[in-house]
Amino acid sequence: MTEVGSLPALHPGVAPLEFLLGTWSGEGEGRYTTIEPFRYGEEIRFWHTGKPFVAYSQRTWALDDGRPMHVETGYWRYSADGRVELVLAHPTGLVEVEEGSLSGTVVTLASTAVVRTSSAKEVTSLARHLAVEGDALTYRLDMAAVGQPDQVHLVATLRRE
Amino acid sequence: MTEVGSLPALHPGVAPLEFLLGTWSGEGEGRYTTIEPFRYGEEIRFWHTGKPFVAYSQRTWALDDGRPMHVETGYWRYSADGRVELVLAHPTGLVEVEEGSLSGTVVTLASTAVVRTSSAKEVTSLARHLAVEGDALTYRLDMAAVGQPDQVHLVATLRRE
Repeated sequence: MTEVGSLPALHPGVAPLEFLLGTWSGEGEGRYTTIEPFRYGEEIRFWHTGKPFVAYSQRTWALDDGRPMHVETGYWRYSADGRVELVLAHPTGLVEVEEGSLSGTVVTLASTAVVRTSSAKEVTSLARHLAVEGDALTYRLDMAAVGQPDQVHLVATLRRE
Repeated sequence: MTEVGSLPALHPGVAPLEFLLGTWSGEGEGRYTTIEPFRYGEEIRFWHTGKPFVAYSQRTWALDDGRPMHVETGYWRYSADGRVELVLAHPTGLVEVEEGSLSGTVVTLASTAVVRTSSAKEVTSLARHLAVEGDALTYRLDMAAVGQPDQVHLVATLRRE
């Protein structure tokens, strides 16, 4: 069987997303109208298996004691007409579909669906702006949730390891 | 920062799902009214980080040449009122929420939402029956998709590694 580590050739269907591949780490800042601002450490991994998608997972941790905070996992797709599609699962009981555009190494996405389990908190919409410049990846996540208006929730800058 | 390998204590909120934890591998059989029956190899991993969810990923491969087939990833939750919740992302451009019940080491789930990206194929509903007995995990996945009625799609038996 094919081991994940054996690195087959990137599927040409996701060649425009090749700039994402690798492991990125750094720090970010979170805020929301309902909580105190906070800083966090983060690691993001983008990898592929030779099929037409890019796999994605990330984890964040508290800077003071390293305790785990958020994780999320899913897949990035690139459609034939040049749109980027993102499908994600969150352990908070959410799944989301985001769609948007790619311009060079800048991705702009907005949720087309956010669905939750019976016991999860309400999230109405999510939007991501992600840019890679050299070995730096910056992103911003906007969110409307728990009755609050759409607002910047997370901003981070990571470096390619 | 906390390494995934350092194994914090299992969160009591997901103690009823502890029987899932580990790496499982084996073989399965797929069928659908629109395709030829096929057999596949599979590895499923369930793990935790000390937070109240169980992380999940799986991958399947062709038995003849080991080429990668499906993958999916997400999280299992156990709600205070005894229900199991599953949130998953599929690289085929799908996300799904499944909910159901746990009876001993048998989980029965049905989708409450299946949402897809613009370029993904239609999947209407999914249902999973998963049972662990000793070191054997068996599951059955039923699916209604691409205009076909709900039917058995996948059946597999895996062993704990």
